[in-house]
Amino acid sequence: MSNVKGLIAAAVATLVVSAGVAHADAAAAVKARQAHMDLYAFNLGILGSMAKGETDYDADAASAAASNIEALAKMKTGAFWPQGSAAGEIENSRALPEIWTTYPAVAEKAQDLVAASEAMSVAAGTGLEPLQAAMGPLGGACVACHKAFRQPE
Amino acid sequence: MSNVKGLIAAAVATLVVSAGVAHADAAAAVKARQAHMDLYAFNLGILGSMAKGETDYDADAASAAASNIEALAKMKTGAFWPQGSAAGEIENSRALPEIWTTYPAVAEKAQDLVAASEAMSVAAGTGLEPLQAAMGPLGGACVACHKAFRQPE
Repeated sequence: MSNVKGLIAAAVATLVVSAGVAHADAAAAVKARQAHMDLYAFNLGILGSMAKGETDYDADAASAAASNIEALAKMKTGAFWPQGSAAGEIENSRALPEIWTTYPAVAEKAQDLVAASEAMSVAAGTGLEPLQAAMGPLGGACVACHKAFRQPE
Repeated sequence: MSNVKGLIAAAVATLVVSAGVAHADAAAAVKARQAHMDLYAFNLGILGSMAKGETDYDADAASAAASNIEALAKMKTGAFWPQGSAAGEIENSRALPEIWTTYPAVAEKAQDLVAASEAMSVAAGTGLEPLQAAMGPLGGACVACHKAFRQPE
């Protein structure tokens, strides 16, 4: 967590850079961030299925999924979230305008996800119980951001 | 390139692990790998647009996109490519069966992409000309794999 300020500063810089993207680019950005979420979901599904005992625990598969989630959490996603891509501004977006108006609150939630994903990366390959213990904070970090910044369906 | 063997071994292990996934999971895997490709495309689009002079060169934005592409190239994607998810075996797949039958040829191409993405990460933030020079090998690594392992539309 020592590099929180650096990460937030980098995220702010990228958001400012991306503020000038045109509407057509905003649609591409929405597609990119949904792809990003799909990759979270797929990898989280692998871990969740093991955590619930629906699939056998597999250290290599768990480690791979956790490593992918950590890589996703650490991506530089400023360009995925340009101005003009909130719900109501563009199709297929459930992003609340608070993402942009209360910034950097969203960057702090993103940082919580980075921390939870790092903890999962450490835990996932070591056994089912550590994996299960790491699921709560990881799922919690997802939910916290969705609750604050995503329009209900 | 010193960890090529390790990467290939890890990829083989994950593919073997994922060989038992059921058909429903194969559909989810197809969605995951298409999301993975969408994220490549979006980030590559940022670099390509600068390389062609369609958008102004921006060192921070270029670095962010390059870093994302490198992270995508280094993901552990074995679970995205289960047996039973080739073209003809499942909807929306253009993956040629040679992916699985000529393995690890595909892992070698993946490793070429890792190398090209690392070179782009080094170059992208240093100037437009280095970025342009790194585009050829990066685009070439994408094309080489698509040409060998993706069904034409």
